[in-house]
Amino acid sequence: MQTNTHLPPARDKLLFTPGPLTTSHSVKQAMLHDAGSWHYEFNAKVNWVRGKILEVAGLSSEAGWESILLQGSGTFGVEAVFATCVPTNGKVAVLSNGAYGERIVRMLQHLTIEHVVLRTPENTPTDPEVVDRALAADKTITHVALVHCETTTGILNPLVEVGRLVKRHGRVHVVDAMSSFGAMPIDFAAAGIDFLISSGNKCLEGVPGFSFVVCRRDALLACDGYARSLSLNLLDQLRGFEKNRQFRFTPPTHAILAFEQALQELEQEGGVAGRAARYQANHQTLVNGMMQLGFHPYLDPAVQSCIITAFCFPRSEKFSFDAFYRGLSEKGFIIYPGKISQADTFRIGCIGRIFPSDIAALLAAIRTVLCEMGLG
Amino acid sequence: MQTNTHLPPARDKLLFTPGPLTTSHSVKQAMLHDAGSWHYEFNAKVNWVRGKILEVAGLSSEAGWESILLQGSGTFGVEAVFATCVPTNGKVAVLSNGAYGERIVRMLQHLTIEHVVLRTPENTPTDPEVVDRALAADKTITHVALVHCETTTGILNPLVEVGRLVKRHGRVHVVDAMSSFGAMPIDFAAAGIDFLISSGNKCLEGVPGFSFVVCRRDALLACDGYARSLSLNLLDQLRGFEKNRQFRFTPPTHAILAFEQALQELEQEGGVAGRAARYQANHQTLVNGMMQLGFHPYLDPAVQSCIITAFCFPRSEKFSFDAFYRGLSEKGFIIYPGKISQADTFRIGCIGRIFPSDIAALLAAIRTVLCEMGLG
Repeated sequence: MQTNTHLPPARDKLLFTPGPLTTSHSVKQAMLHDAGSWHYEFNAKVNWVRGKILEVAGLSSEAGWESILLQGSGTFGVEAVFATCVPTNGKVAVLSNGAYGERIVRMLQHLTIEHVVLRTPENTPTDPEVVDRALAADKTITHVALVHCETTTGILNPLVEVGRLVKRHGRVHVVDAMSSFGAMPIDFAAAGIDFLISSGNKCLEGVPGFSFVVCRRDALLACDGYARSLSLNLLDQLRGFEKNRQFRFTPPTHAILAFEQALQELEQEGGVAGRAARYQANHQTLVNGMMQLGFHPYLDPAVQSCIITAFCFPRSEKFSFDAFYRGLSEKGFIIYPGKISQADTFRIGCIGRIFPSDIAALLAAIRTVLCEMGLG
Repeated sequence: MQTNTHLPPARDKLLFTPGPLTTSHSVKQAMLHDAGSWHYEFNAKVNWVRGKILEVAGLSSEAGWESILLQGSGTFGVEAVFATCVPTNGKVAVLSNGAYGERIVRMLQHLTIEHVVLRTPENTPTDPEVVDRALAADKTITHVALVHCETTTGILNPLVEVGRLVKRHGRVHVVDAMSSFGAMPIDFAAAGIDFLISSGNKCLEGVPGFSFVVCRRDALLACDGYARSLSLNLLDQLRGFEKNRQFRFTPPTHAILAFEQALQELEQEGGVAGRAARYQANHQTLVNGMMQLGFHPYLDPAVQSCIITAFCFPRSEKFSFDAFYRGLSEKGFIIYPGKISQADTFRIGCIGRIFPSDIAALLAAIRTVLCEMGLG
């Protein structure tokens, strides 16, 4: 019997990536509406979303915190913080152990902001002692930039330990929490966070179109006049929201409507704690299953997050990542390539609207594809 | 009989704005899918969209043209052109007669790019003779920036006349065609365009989430090393697409899927010519009806585009824009406030998936609201 492979499938391929992710159908359905970006009904939603982000972070505007939405991808939000908040004579210490740390370095180069890079290998968390010594030795460093979960490998960096040191030295702490915010609790006070950046299409399970910055109001207001870009001017963006609850420039209205729904579904899941539990279950199912199939995670389990896991290529000439990837795609599963310079890896994400049963289905497909490649 | 005003409505309010616009249901339905941003199926769509934009523009990559999608609103695209393409010792002449010209000035201030502003009043098109004299007198001007249709008023600026002069003087011509691209034919050769910026959520009737730049490949490649921002680095963005058909950073996947559908629907409508005819019919219906209701357009018809029309407030103390706006909103019609510094106006857009019958329904609602305000 022949099957017709040109028939459209019943459902989308599942995304096991660091984002954009598989989202719930109800989140996508929220986009079946056109909203007026100047209209009071839409602006009330924008205002609600801004407040809800603070609530998810365990913060409040009364306690001096703000959440600011910015059009574009997460990278735009990270660059906006540096473009807006570092004074002309400022200097940023970037703690890097992967592609997203290096991306911050490239931003600072473009913005011609002075910086120093404290690197650790891709499989090694940032060392707080090195940070301590660097801040003690160089009083001209004004800002410290840390990537909480470096998506390159899925490694978790010591946010609280670094943050305590940054505050002890009286510097500004900027945290790229793109792939961690919503997937694990973050204690802003303990980690001495001044600016944290994340995105709607990561663990809050919305769709891509904007990033958001959670920051201390005072820290942002102190940056008046520094902005090196109009579009990325975070202080002006805050002032726009305060003036009339509006984005200064055309917002991704549909993505905001989807995000409103996504935040409601986060609450239904039990907030960050509930979501973290599901992601942990996904991750455990994945790692156990992959090890049974003979794969080895790249990282030591002690520094591995539940968000995304890098696996080493099998030591066989029969393995080709391209064939592996396409084989899984044909079965309805999309994984992610590696981004590590020192080792051949691929990555599997455990975030988005996926469950341990989806991980089990992925594992079954991997087993089949390995057999097809003669690796079974 | 009492009506229950808390029942959800059957349909969205219609948007008579400069965007985000009312889009077709099928365009929004295209967003009911999650696509992998690294996946070859999605990247083939990105590639198709880039080619189709050139086709809509009447251009081709073989003839040396590129289209580059950029995350964020239209403003991000405009700023990306200046941030990427003006050398350190460059100088931009901005031709301004409204808020979007002034926005370019603010961008250049943020980017610390030298500039001069040639202003005409908000109801007066740019004067090509003034441009000619300015370029002859100041050889340090490297770029000329023109807003084709200034959405502040809906005024059309003399694109081809200005462009000829810019080219005669050997300068780079940058055109903000945010609200005109797709609504009227644009002759890139005659207008000597080097860089043109527009957005997916304007007259191509997609949803917001990205802008695009159509440019001469040579003109962009000549800008290596100038970029003042990583996120807004248009040349790197092009190189990313050329390397693997991918956005460098997370794309608004759902907005791209919607745009693919929107471009197919543009073709079904007969391309730019077909769409222009509908918008013209919308505009004529609107202006005729509004004049019958006693309203006066702000602009002289000779310089008025079909895209958006500014109307003067009625000369009556009984008129309040807020009450007028809310009255229309309650009846399902969303109009737009004025943005003119010299006159009290409101604006009504004629673009998006709206038809003369929708304009007629709006006019009937305006008549009713005027009666309710005691202005009937």
